[in-house]
Amino acid sequence: MRAALDAAAAAGVAGEVPVGAVVVHRGTIVATGANAPRATCDPTAHAEIVAIRAAAAALGRDRLEDCDLWVTLEPCAMCAGAIAHARIARLYYAAPDPKGGAVEHGPRFFGQSTCHHRPEIYPGIGEGEAAALLRAFFAGRR
Amino acid sequence: MRAALDAAAAAGVAGEVPVGAVVVHRGTIVATGANAPRATCDPTAHAEIVAIRAAAAALGRDRLEDCDLWVTLEPCAMCAGAIAHARIARLYYAAPDPKGGAVEHGPRFFGQSTCHHRPEIYPGIGEGEAAALLRAFFAGRR
Repeated sequence: MRAALDAAAAAGVAGEVPVGAVVVHRGTIVATGANAPRATCDPTAHAEIVAIRAAAAALGRDRLEDCDLWVTLEPCAMCAGAIAHARIARLYYAAPDPKGGAVEHGPRFFGQSTCHHRPEIYPGIGEGEAAALLRAFFAGRR
Repeated sequence: MRAALDAAAAAGVAGEVPVGAVVVHRGTIVATGANAPRATCDPTAHAEIVAIRAAAAALGRDRLEDCDLWVTLEPCAMCAGAIAHARIARLYYAAPDPKGGAVEHGPRFFGQSTCHHRPEIYPGIGEGEAAALLRAFFAGRR
């Protein structure tokens, strides 16, 4: 989660909402993602999507059954769907997101009967630091 | 929808589940997407995501408020989330997807209180041809 928090901080410095993610394959980080929809003109460029795409490219396959995703914010519906499509084994996330989260809020995607893959889910790791990054970012924009 | 159906057929010929999508900006197709997660080693490479990313890159911005998305299958949660993030104005889709769809099935994403953007939604256009493509594809795999 340290690496994901660092990626989140870097996103914030770049003027993007500070969210970061890493994909870990057998104990090694194979991809890092920072939230960057504005800089990249890509509405899908959430940290999780960036990291999952990079990990899949690095490993040369579209399924990541032996990989874990660490992300600083509760994934939205788009990212939760991508996590299921990628068959991520374990999902670790830091701060909850009552406004846009889709794991413990809103659509609660992994609990839907139409969800074809549910990772093990571990929330709350690094929550304080992740939430502080987000609070500072939004306070600075007001 | 003709162009989206052609992209779907091309995906099927390439061995991918036959789903196609186009993004239309002021009456002109600015991006076409074919489902290609296997060929591209990218679990997020659904037709909608491919088309939205290409349209955003072509237009040089991450919000597509003045664009419509035409897709041959009811979007999944990942794609519905991307449609909301991109602020797509109108969503036209052909066949319903009771197994993985997230518009009229499962999470019914656009009806969630946490959904921050809901496009106008027009289902059923070209449904027969889109469903026939999918049936033929899955019949051929058995």
